[in-house]
Amino acid sequence: MVDDETTDEGDGADATMDDADTSTDDSDASTDELAWRTTDSAIDYACPGFDVRMDDVTLPDGTETDFHYVDEPEAVVVLPFTPDGDVVLVEEWRQAVGRVNRGLPAGSLEPDDDDIAAAARRELAEETGFEAGSLERVGSVEPANGLLNSVHHHFVARDCEPTAEQELDFNESIRVAVEPYEDVLAAAVDGHLRDGRAVLGILRYELAGRWR
Amino acid sequence: MVDDETTDEGDGADATMDDADTSTDDSDASTDELAWRTTDSAIDYACPGFDVRMDDVTLPDGTETDFHYVDEPEAVVVLPFTPDGDVVLVEEWRQAVGRVNRGLPAGSLEPDDDDIAAAARRELAEETGFEAGSLERVGSVEPANGLLNSVHHHFVARDCEPTAEQELDFNESIRVAVEPYEDVLAAAVDGHLRDGRAVLGILRYELAGRWR
Repeated sequence: MVDDETTDEGDGADATMDDADTSTDDSDASTDELAWRTTDSAIDYACPGFDVRMDDVTLPDGTETDFHYVDEPEAVVVLPFTPDGDVVLVEEWRQAVGRVNRGLPAGSLEPDDDDIAAAARRELAEETGFEAGSLERVGSVEPANGLLNSVHHHFVARDCEPTAEQELDFNESIRVAVEPYEDVLAAAVDGHLRDGRAVLGILRYELAGRWR
Repeated sequence: MVDDETTDEGDGADATMDDADTSTDDSDASTDELAWRTTDSAIDYACPGFDVRMDDVTLPDGTETDFHYVDEPEAVVVLPFTPDGDVVLVEEWRQAVGRVNRGLPAGSLEPDDDDIAAAARRELAEETGFEAGSLERVGSVEPANGLLNSVHHHFVARDCEPTAEQELDFNESIRVAVEPYEDVLAAAVDGHLRDGRAVLGILRYELAGRWR
């Protein structure tokens, strides 16, 4: 399940999902009896960071209605380990929840990103000043697909060393914390970490590793 | 880490988070050097399902700017087990990602919910027709707190039996699937399940259970 970064050519995430065919798969067949038909689609609101899209849709029972959702770029989330096996965390203010958040380095794909692995390396370096010795993709999830089309691509970075300069966006102020992995894992399981993308990335790494 | 439902009086989630004080905690101190100051706040856009809020803020370096985020109610996510230990899943169309999604029963808190456990029982019954014999809260996370203020409260429901009638919203059409737990867990780890809130709920249950 863990791809080497050489296979991560942008659409690698989808390829990983599409080639399986078991009963536990998600289906993407638009011929499914549950499928909606989209008759029109437009951006209904735009602001820095995301858009709101409104689609005109026809439900399976023929009802015509509209549906609004948040449209934003795909993102990478990085679980970075130092050579000693500690985890590099970021602490930053999250206005949406009104508190300082502990989480993993993360950020949106940008138009000039060659692939998602390059984006993961960039976000790690920009947010923490650490550069990754190696990088593996763990998997991809949609964090809240009832409301938004976001996709989070999770990576594990190993042998991360503080060799770069932090390069933050104008409204980012990020404090770096390095903690033992077992403490971070415990916080992800017991609820002391509230950042869902960090919790998901850590739990998935833990369980994937046990099965490797 | 798992609360009995009798302790889930609406704000139980916050109480669980606030009473800890270890180095792996999130901080909510507005006196933190990273804290932003909010000088005004208003709904800038509204649609069915969510609002977009715009806050006027002052950053730690004194910069005055604004920040937009999605404002929506808290939600419950239920991992329901049958008496045989199988998992009750839901399949429904997700317009934001254009496909049928496999996930867990879930829904937003409503104004007349007495507590979040009652909301979990209601959403399970309405979406699947199954009623829970017992319910435990596993924990709460913010799925994407850079973009939205959503909080997902995760529950485990046991001894679920098909004794209720599905009661769906006008734009919901949901197919129920019952699958062996080990298959669902494998799909959550290997990426065949793409629904992040389902993946997070399953992985956290798995790891919490091992430590219980």
